[in-house]
Amino acid sequence: MEIIKGGICAATGFTAGGIHCGIRKNKTKKDLALIFSEKKAAAAAVYTTNLVKGAPLVVTKNHIADGFAQAVICNSGNANTCNANGIEIAEGMSKLVAEAMNISENDVVVASTGVIGQPLDITPIKNGMEALKASLGNNSEDAAEGIMTTDTVLKEIAVSFTVGGKECKIGGIAKGSGMIHPNMATMLVFITTDCAISPEMLQKALSSDIKNTFNMVSVDGDTSTNDMVTVLANGMAGNEEITSDGEAFDTFMKALNTITVHLCRMIAGDGEGATKLLECQVNGAKTEDIAKAVAKSVICSSLTKAAMFGADANWGRVLCAIGYSGADVDVTKIDVSFISDKGEILVCKDGAGVDFSEEKAKEILLEKEITTKIELNDGEAKATAWGCDLTYEYVKINGDYRT
Amino acid sequence: MEIIKGGICAATGFTAGGIHCGIRKNKTKKDLALIFSEKKAAAAAVYTTNLVKGAPLVVTKNHIADGFAQAVICNSGNANTCNANGIEIAEGMSKLVAEAMNISENDVVVASTGVIGQPLDITPIKNGMEALKASLGNNSEDAAEGIMTTDTVLKEIAVSFTVGGKECKIGGIAKGSGMIHPNMATMLVFITTDCAISPEMLQKALSSDIKNTFNMVSVDGDTSTNDMVTVLANGMAGNEEITSDGEAFDTFMKALNTITVHLCRMIAGDGEGATKLLECQVNGAKTEDIAKAVAKSVICSSLTKAAMFGADANWGRVLCAIGYSGADVDVTKIDVSFISDKGEILVCKDGAGVDFSEEKAKEILLEKEITTKIELNDGEAKATAWGCDLTYEYVKINGDYRT
Repeated sequence: MEIIKGGICAATGFTAGGIHCGIRKNKTKKDLALIFSEKKAAAAAVYTTNLVKGAPLVVTKNHIADGFAQAVICNSGNANTCNANGIEIAEGMSKLVAEAMNISENDVVVASTGVIGQPLDITPIKNGMEALKASLGNNSEDAAEGIMTTDTVLKEIAVSFTVGGKECKIGGIAKGSGMIHPNMATMLVFITTDCAISPEMLQKALSSDIKNTFNMVSVDGDTSTNDMVTVLANGMAGNEEITSDGEAFDTFMKALNTITVHLCRMIAGDGEGATKLLECQVNGAKTEDIAKAVAKSVICSSLTKAAMFGADANWGRVLCAIGYSGADVDVTKIDVSFISDKGEILVCKDGAGVDFSEEKAKEILLEKEITTKIELNDGEAKATAWGCDLTYEYVKINGDYRT
Repeated sequence: MEIIKGGICAATGFTAGGIHCGIRKNKTKKDLALIFSEKKAAAAAVYTTNLVKGAPLVVTKNHIADGFAQAVICNSGNANTCNANGIEIAEGMSKLVAEAMNISENDVVVASTGVIGQPLDITPIKNGMEALKASLGNNSEDAAEGIMTTDTVLKEIAVSFTVGGKECKIGGIAKGSGMIHPNMATMLVFITTDCAISPEMLQKALSSDIKNTFNMVSVDGDTSTNDMVTVLANGMAGNEEITSDGEAFDTFMKALNTITVHLCRMIAGDGEGATKLLECQVNGAKTEDIAKAVAKSVICSSLTKAAMFGADANWGRVLCAIGYSGADVDVTKIDVSFISDKGEILVCKDGAGVDFSEEKAKEILLEKEITTKIELNDGEAKATAWGCDLTYEYVKINGDYRT
């Protein structure tokens, strides 16, 4: 497997584009993205478990019920959620794409992100459709820009891999960066591949993958109303279609996982206001569920997040977060270390503090990527979760988001 | 019932005091408190459900297993938690009080609050015992000061009430203000009363009360390792001892609830970095559990808390938090209003936005106490939760708490 350029346009047959159509006031920010596949593609998706669901998710679910799609439209600046006419607008967006691209509106994935509860005017999207279509090309970055909200960096990745002697490519784009605490679903992520795989196996791969990737990310504990990941697979790599478990499926899963882990880390590291990417590795758990519960509890703790912002080795807060995680652990067996590019330092052994150099700890914690390693010494299961620190900037961004 | 002065010294037979003994570096801050009852008192307590439990809680639980206690010692500046010699130190503190006050060490409630995982040196406490004993008097405020950590205001309250023709008094002190997300337990609260009530009924009253009071408060989602509420009832009011359900018990419950609700609101309003007390009232739920889950989810949402800091009527975040609460609600029936001393404004009706004056909303949200009123229109059950806004100051306090 090799990391390649091109993002969601890396896979054969996919083009993408993005424009500013006028949903956002700031004209320098793109607010509309389109992804298009030359051939109809197998489609899979997972959605937020929030009971308050964005209208676009409802429409998308209907459209890909048959397992296929050919285009994705996504706007930023407005979530089209909690609006009386939300479904109508989401269907209107699909229809505009169908007409422009000469495909069925049932083959359009539609997504929106931004403020909740403000009616979305379809006029700028309608007026922008021609320009949006014209923007299609090898322009993954434009599409990635078009779906950004408070993100500070564009999120894309692609890899190549081989299935049955044929070179396949898979790539993805994502947007964070607040209201992120996925629960059997995730944030907005669009993945494209030219690998031939049946809709059923594509959905199986995605549903399985997110349990250890997007569902293990938290920026702020708030599960969004508009979370969604979709994968389109158009089969243009020419490999024999993957229709069952086996070596080819495993290879595809591995490629998909490379994309999703990369995007998870980018989303966590670019969480609203974040200065650091935090990773929590839990080892030696009795079960995977225990390992996951511990990892997520530590990643979600406001106190641990604030301590990391201050590069403060306050491991007592890590123990505290493990203790209230609800997971069945033996506190007296727990070891905790902090790791970064500057080294590793053990701060807690058997549930109690050890003497350690505060100076060395500070040096380690001043880095941009910090791993909290927790050894439960209670079994073989493990899990990893990702998040970010809690900063002044998070408060600033969210103290007045709408204006 | 009448609000009276005196805090934990309002009830007959109780004295209290507080000193700086040297656990904290800052000599202007008291760090040791003592509460004493002339007569042995019925004792009840509830503790944190965090698996990581402070050593003082373990010792206290043993000491009041027989239902009685006569003194409370509490230090701030160090939680005496996750230390190899924690139990020994907590027992040592009890012994010092027992010797000084000439009571059994089994009648001492011991509590600690502050940083986790740093050994607590008993020397300053030992050296301070004489001064601590000498500080005993009608000094509820000194004790309240002695247990403060990052609290900015002292928290005390007392009321008088009548049971069987006898005037009784009940008072309490509390400390917040971070790591507060009680779960079948609470923060540090000490309550004293001269009402005569059996240990069993006292425990019943406390365990029942906290479900709707301390368990409905959240400052930051982190359930502390050292949470505890204790009530001492010394019977010196001379009423006939309450030993069963009935009118007298109901009167006592009402007085207790007045104390606990007041302290809840004080703890929430003085949450770390807080500029506002937030209350969430949920009405019209199918069950009380649903009402509670919704109220706590809204109070705990970082995004809602940050919006309130910015006085931003971003009701979409309220809907979002209801949606991921896990509670069974019909989103299309939900109404949301914001209320303060400046009035009430409806911002969401039947799960969708309504036209409202942003100017009026801003005026309402700029106040210091804000209520988010949620009408589920789905039944008769209701619940209230308390919390605070998320501010720059919270991040500052917790970015470098240990130094």
